[in-house]
Amino acid sequence: MIFEEKTIESERIYEGAILNLRRDKVTVLTGESYREIIEHSGGAVIGAVTSNHNLIMVKQYRKPLERVVLEVPAGKRDGNENGEEVARRELREETGYTAGEIIHLTTMYPTPGYSEEALDIFLARDLIPGETDFDENEAIEICEVPLAEAVDMIMRGEIKDGKTQVTVLMVKEYLERESNR
Amino acid sequence: MIFEEKTIESERIYEGAILNLRRDKVTVLTGESYREIIEHSGGAVIGAVTSNHNLIMVKQYRKPLERVVLEVPAGKRDGNENGEEVARRELREETGYTAGEIIHLTTMYPTPGYSEEALDIFLARDLIPGETDFDENEAIEICEVPLAEAVDMIMRGEIKDGKTQVTVLMVKEYLERESNR
Repeated sequence: MIFEEKTIESERIYEGAILNLRRDKVTVLTGESYREIIEHSGGAVIGAVTSNHNLIMVKQYRKPLERVVLEVPAGKRDGNENGEEVARRELREETGYTAGEIIHLTTMYPTPGYSEEALDIFLARDLIPGETDFDENEAIEICEVPLAEAVDMIMRGEIKDGKTQVTVLMVKEYLERESNR
Repeated sequence: MIFEEKTIESERIYEGAILNLRRDKVTVLTGESYREIIEHSGGAVIGAVTSNHNLIMVKQYRKPLERVVLEVPAGKRDGNENGEEVARRELREETGYTAGEIIHLTTMYPTPGYSEEALDIFLARDLIPGETDFDENEAIEICEVPLAEAVDMIMRGEIKDGKTQVTVLMVKEYLERESNR
């Protein structure tokens, strides 16, 4: 039996634009302890694959890392959207594409130790091109990478974004299993 | 050319036990904006595989999600440890195992949008059993899962921890490529 940590008291530390921070005093095996917890709305991630097996990717500047990061399209939940709605909206806004087929692959907790964030990961295909619609603060460059090359880039340590690593490797595994059915 | 966001000013919001929070005013394409940034020491993640192809996993209660999560062993950097030192220490503390061979697979940014955190991911094998040494606040249950079953659990959406998804899928791909060389 694993010990469940019950909240004794909870302190609001910060309420922000993309995250809140609270500090919970909790029961632990040895008595009491504290947990720092990020509250986050969660979002969706899209592994969008063209008919010739290219993956749609985006490059953007990530301030926390002070560098440009190569990622798959993704974004935060707006209001009451469900995962698929977030995925379809973000795919269209960031890349212009609409997906004829969209398949939920999994849910990912990027940092379960200190954040509530959950990301729904989708495979999107039968892509129809259209106009992009970036958020005012997003400066995004779109590119296409052959899916097999994206897998190689992960294995060489060249793709480091966690949600992109999971999405690319799951899309590969999903398509292999599908072609073997 | 992707726009680099320069810091105009930086506000310290919180300094805590496992993370700090700051809010940077930055230059963006359209003028100025704010970025909420988690500072985190980073750490290491270990895909430890036994001689009979079982993966060593741990179950622990994750307060942010209010549930028990199945993960691979991992932990935060202590002081000036390098990634391999973190990996070897955490593997021993959480599972008792010492690895005869340890291979750096990649670095993972779990949440590049709002956190500096970087995790070094390792494959560990030639495992020698020993005594565990949990942190006082850790209540951990250890289990072994066949590597192929762990992959199936990811594909069925039953393993949701991001670092575990990346580690399991990369270990599988690494071992397949190795056996084909």
